[in-house]
Amino acid sequence: MDLDRILQKATQQNKVRIAIASAEDFEVLEAVSLSIERNLASFILFGARDKIQHIMKIHFSNLIDHDEVKIKHTESLADAANQAVLSVKNGHAQVLMKGNIPTSMILKAVLNKENGLRSGKALSHVAAFQIPSFNRLLFITDPAMNIEPDLEQKVQIINNAVQIARATGVEVPKVAALAAVEVINPDMQATLDAAALTQMNRRGQISNCIVDGPLALDIAISVDAAEHKRISSDVAGAADILLVPNLETGNVFYKSLIYFAKAKVGAVLAGAKAPIVLTSRADSAESKLYSLALAICSVNNKEMERK
Amino acid sequence: MDLDRILQKATQQNKVRIAIASAEDFEVLEAVSLSIERNLASFILFGARDKIQHIMKIHFSNLIDHDEVKIKHTESLADAANQAVLSVKNGHAQVLMKGNIPTSMILKAVLNKENGLRSGKALSHVAAFQIPSFNRLLFITDPAMNIEPDLEQKVQIINNAVQIARATGVEVPKVAALAAVEVINPDMQATLDAAALTQMNRRGQISNCIVDGPLALDIAISVDAAEHKRISSDVAGAADILLVPNLETGNVFYKSLIYFAKAKVGAVLAGAKAPIVLTSRADSAESKLYSLALAICSVNNKEMERK
Repeated sequence: MDLDRILQKATQQNKVRIAIASAEDFEVLEAVSLSIERNLASFILFGARDKIQHIMKIHFSNLIDHDEVKIKHTESLADAANQAVLSVKNGHAQVLMKGNIPTSMILKAVLNKENGLRSGKALSHVAAFQIPSFNRLLFITDPAMNIEPDLEQKVQIINNAVQIARATGVEVPKVAALAAVEVINPDMQATLDAAALTQMNRRGQISNCIVDGPLALDIAISVDAAEHKRISSDVAGAADILLVPNLETGNVFYKSLIYFAKAKVGAVLAGAKAPIVLTSRADSAESKLYSLALAICSVNNKEMERK
Repeated sequence: MDLDRILQKATQQNKVRIAIASAEDFEVLEAVSLSIERNLASFILFGARDKIQHIMKIHFSNLIDHDEVKIKHTESLADAANQAVLSVKNGHAQVLMKGNIPTSMILKAVLNKENGLRSGKALSHVAAFQIPSFNRLLFITDPAMNIEPDLEQKVQIINNAVQIARATGVEVPKVAALAAVEVINPDMQATLDAAALTQMNRRGQISNCIVDGPLALDIAISVDAAEHKRISSDVAGAADILLVPNLETGNVFYKSLIYFAKAKVGAVLAGAKAPIVLTSRADSAESKLYSLALAICSVNNKEMERK
């Protein structure tokens, strides 16, 4: 599976509606335009109607009066965030996407106790990387939300990533709990948590996946490295999901793949009642499409599992 | 500067003698043989004389009875470690190299209070990466020794890396104290430490370099990303040394560069009375040469600064 195939898969699934909080932005509307061209999704655009229409007129005439693109005027950024979240909560849309507003503002609306999208579970970021010279998609979690997750949060971070990976077609993802070493070292919390997560998986407390750790990155992804170190593990050399022990590790890993390994990425924030797409201005239009595709696959997978 | 130029530079400097703890190993002697071919260094090989000579006879006849290659017979691995360390302590050799023994064993000899190589400073690992598609050498520290360094240890880790970078010709290295964000966040120790390190540098408590942080990886190494985020910093987009906040970040970063970005690397353990080369079996012969070259440059640079 690669990101283009996930994009194709998303296009073939039930049409999903995406609520965008603050769409009055060239790059956001570019992603909408590309999605509409590919028949990927429908949209509700929350934001300043005049500005949205103005950008459409100049750059994206295919969106004007399009059946699958509704504009809902809002008076402020906070209003756009709240209304977009509410539209997802009420079932008018199935995916929330951050437009031209700060992440903190959309998260505030998402986490609102009354009108937000809390599910009782931890929110976590799941990034799917397609790396040149590597033969499969790698899901990395959590490179963006949880600073120093404890064991319970790590369980939820794994569950969130497993749901996304399964939605893309990896039936029983292999999860490597990363650390700097493969042995348990009481001075390294990452190794203790990894051991606990491995046993929780064996005892059925984490399901739909195979967890093993602690594993260093090379052992998790390279068959040669795993054989060389003679590590006995169902995950070594074959990991689909890489659980990083803390935010810095995930963040540096993520950026290293983008800048030095020239990887492509799609990502969603999982764990809320609906998947959330939090792409930033620096992301390419292609990357935004991949993120939307992941979110769409996730929605369809959840509906299928509910039936 | 790239790793091949460092290798060339090392060859042109004063000849350095390298003590190898436990040299009875094909891959260790391969590195010795390549070094001798390049006239890079002299060697004292500690280990089982018979085995060393046997491997030489079959594979590396250029080393037999070579003026610059002495064999000192030792009876055990621990003995090889202790004697190699002692030869450096006594000035018979200027660099220590791990041969076919566990890292823990050589470190035990290095850290021995009476006969070791302690300098009172923290030991730290400094890795020099040459990344395809990137225009300069990047020094990453510490990906291998210090689990969760505190502020004082980070100062020493920076000092150790600055000494190595300067030895390769980077006169005033730019040091990015990495974190996941560029703002100070009291919940993220990495950002607090980075701020403190930046100010310590401004106050002259860390010298011979320019420190700035917190910086995320993209901001540290990409001029575009730095300009895009409008970060005002002398280091942003121009970092030579990347200080990682913890071991897991460094370890995953290191392996990501090797496995996914196809980077070349040379590395030394710095901070003891002499540089220590701790390459592992999985390292290529080329990588071992780069590590020796870094160590040789470091020795010569220290001698020059002493004069």
